[in-house]
Amino acid sequence: MSTKPIVLRLGTVRYAQEAWKELEKVATVIVSESKNREEFIKDLQTKYSQVQHITRTFDSANETGLFDKELIQHLPKSLISISHNGAGYDQISAPELIERKIQLSNVPEIVDNATADNHVFLLLGALRNFGHGRQNLLAGEWPSKGNASGAPIGHDPQGKVVGIVGLGGIGRTILKRLQPFGFEKFIYHNRNRLPEDLEGGAEYVSLDELLSTSDIISINIPLSPKTKHFFNEEKFSKMKKGVVIVNTARGGVIDETAFIKYLTNGTVRSAGLDVLENEPNVNKELISLPNVLALPHMGTHTVETVKAMEEHVVKNVENVIKTGKVISLVPEHKNIDFTK
Amino acid sequence: MSTKPIVLRLGTVRYAQEAWKELEKVATVIVSESKNREEFIKDLQTKYSQVQHITRTFDSANETGLFDKELIQHLPKSLISISHNGAGYDQISAPELIERKIQLSNVPEIVDNATADNHVFLLLGALRNFGHGRQNLLAGEWPSKGNASGAPIGHDPQGKVVGIVGLGGIGRTILKRLQPFGFEKFIYHNRNRLPEDLEGGAEYVSLDELLSTSDIISINIPLSPKTKHFFNEEKFSKMKKGVVIVNTARGGVIDETAFIKYLTNGTVRSAGLDVLENEPNVNKELISLPNVLALPHMGTHTVETVKAMEEHVVKNVENVIKTGKVISLVPEHKNIDFTK
Repeated sequence: MSTKPIVLRLGTVRYAQEAWKELEKVATVIVSESKNREEFIKDLQTKYSQVQHITRTFDSANETGLFDKELIQHLPKSLISISHNGAGYDQISAPELIERKIQLSNVPEIVDNATADNHVFLLLGALRNFGHGRQNLLAGEWPSKGNASGAPIGHDPQGKVVGIVGLGGIGRTILKRLQPFGFEKFIYHNRNRLPEDLEGGAEYVSLDELLSTSDIISINIPLSPKTKHFFNEEKFSKMKKGVVIVNTARGGVIDETAFIKYLTNGTVRSAGLDVLENEPNVNKELISLPNVLALPHMGTHTVETVKAMEEHVVKNVENVIKTGKVISLVPEHKNIDFTK
Repeated sequence: MSTKPIVLRLGTVRYAQEAWKELEKVATVIVSESKNREEFIKDLQTKYSQVQHITRTFDSANETGLFDKELIQHLPKSLISISHNGAGYDQISAPELIERKIQLSNVPEIVDNATADNHVFLLLGALRNFGHGRQNLLAGEWPSKGNASGAPIGHDPQGKVVGIVGLGGIGRTILKRLQPFGFEKFIYHNRNRLPEDLEGGAEYVSLDELLSTSDIISINIPLSPKTKHFFNEEKFSKMKKGVVIVNTARGGVIDETAFIKYLTNGTVRSAGLDVLENEPNVNKELISLPNVLALPHMGTHTVETVKAMEEHVVKNVENVIKTGKVISLVPEHKNIDFTK
């Protein structure tokens, strides 16, 4: 009988095969074959009942569903840690895990560059109506619809105020990339003002000031029960007419019903969206609006970043096996005693 | 009888109405109503036979055709200057105008920022396969085609070499914007090496070295008889497998038949194109390739830039009326005696 700890892997490994091979020297790795949530919950009581560590991907929710209160109740008593492959971990209820003394880690920082590149693409595209022009071009409407195949004329960064909601790792990386483009100024709102060296030249303002003065609103807040539908009718009604909105965080932070209303009544000129509320089952009305440039969640869809993220997940597991602690504990789990 | 010089305006004015109103204080402005080339050539002998200055836009070629040898022969003897609204003036044969002692001005510099923003959008989009993902998303192929709706996984700037062909005003503006993204290094090729202060940290290399070592090739050369099909079978065959190509200069600098071959045989991984060889009549096979992100010539399609360009055209006319010389003479016309 092996004395190695057991690791249950949910979701596929695309590039970090070597790291997983290394992990097998110190752990027994089980690859989940549960096909749906019902089967997964059953397997947790049987096949997976001795598991100490779980790793999971965003897409593995297609098989297991969310790690919510219900599912967490069924996790085996032996479980010590869950290592999530992603920066956002809204699929997992972190507070419920505290009660069960199960540590949760995510993958911060590694995602910052690729997500910021994705954000800049969407910001430029929305500001310039490039999505609209491309659709008309592909629809054969050039030259019949005239200049730029009929896409509305766009705007330059010069003279425009960029308001960053959530100046964390990703927000700061976006800010650095946008600096040479010639925007008028950068403002931001976090719950608390950052130390000046982390502000990167952005000016701290109240949320109301940000909403009413930004020409472009860059959304970078995590999804949690508190931030669900943070951008709702009330917030949209405070925005400047003609504002451009970019969201590469999570779709659920925007109330999509209110969003469609403000995208069609002239308040929101255009939007760049990498994330959608009920993805991958998307609101077709929203993504088909000519002033919406939407992508199917491609923020970290690069060989280099996916590989680094997968390797970081393995490092979290190796570390918790070796020291009892994951490396990148999620903020809600800091300063908690996980001794069982 | 008025003694004011006569200005013939070809193409529409979108935002610089005030500047044109000012110009009317010192000039008689005729707005061209010629519907096609034949009519235009006829009108040049009759209605427009006393014109001293012509202003034109890129789109006015839809009515007049190119300002080639044939058309230039028909220009009135009174003509002193042509002020073109655009940076690229390949629609006009500059050498033929010298023989006729007609000065040609373009609009340089003003276009640099908007064109560079367009270039960065296309570069990020091509590197990350965002165009492919968006098309699949709009086609309803998410989640059926899986992760990122089946778009091939992209790449990060880290470790990649960007090769700029043509480090002029636009190329340097692109370079400045790309600097914070974390590329490995920037190299460039011009006919002659630039002074170091204009290189902005980019390394001068031979064209062959650029073609064989660049992960991304950024094209910024004007179209002329010498640069037509500059990127041909021979050049493509020297490129690194998996190269990404971005062109916001002119479609004609690429041989599109060879381009399609190399876009489909795996050499060119993806391309971002704002310009196409026979635009606005585009090669549908080329723009429909899943690895091509094409736009209908939107490089300067912004309110701010169009207005500034239109105003600059008026300034050229005002200046030639006042001093006998346009402000921004095209390079081929420098140091030429235009005295009639």
